[in-house]
Amino acid sequence: MAPSTTAVLLPDAPEGAFDPSCPGRVVLDHVTSKWGVLVLVALDGRTLRWGELRRTVEGVSEKMLAQTLRTLEGDGFVLRESMDVIPPHVEYSLTPLGDDLVAHLKPLVHWILDHAADIVG
Amino acid sequence: MAPSTTAVLLPDAPEGAFDPSCPGRVVLDHVTSKWGVLVLVALDGRTLRWGELRRTVEGVSEKMLAQTLRTLEGDGFVLRESMDVIPPHVEYSLTPLGDDLVAHLKPLVHWILDHAADIVG
Repeated sequence: MAPSTTAVLLPDAPEGAFDPSCPGRVVLDHVTSKWGVLVLVALDGRTLRWGELRRTVEGVSEKMLAQTLRTLEGDGFVLRESMDVIPPHVEYSLTPLGDDLVAHLKPLVHWILDHAADIVG
Repeated sequence: MAPSTTAVLLPDAPEGAFDPSCPGRVVLDHVTSKWGVLVLVALDGRTLRWGELRRTVEGVSEKMLAQTLRTLEGDGFVLRESMDVIPPHVEYSLTPLGDDLVAHLKPLVHWILDHAADIVG
């Protein structure tokens, strides 16, 4: 019995976004983690090596970059490829699912960048 | 002189998203904070009191909800109105800027909810 709770649920259903036990909330947490958005946008349309990613996503620590990449790889958004060359190196790119996600992320990021100076300034 | 850094910058300019000293990065951090997305979406198209927000954004602590609301209010996304009634209460809603932001946030949230079961499952 929770009429007051029911009363505040949204009609157009991002309801699943609010329940901590739902997959939607889990993936939302991954994508909107402090570094998730930046790593995803950094990989938009290109393949980067570890060091290139680290330089692009300014301010990320090695530990946080590794953790973010592991999470995004686990969700199927990022592809990690270990190149069989000398010296060995690893490349990261978006999967088709990651491409689709980033297509939905970019309008938001662009809106924020377009408005940020007014907001923070 | 940083040709390797320049080489990895994006052609279509979310460049500002990556520089920790730029307003874009600051606002992006606010919006994509652990609770920012959920609070913004919770207020989509409606006004909620503190307790309603707390129940809607399941799992948020009083401290984190207060901090998130202060940040979003400071950015001009959320309007806080203290009602002059007895007993006194406070209502939260989106500003026109917040409405515009949430319009760009919802497609992403809906995409994530639509795909989450496959991703986490």
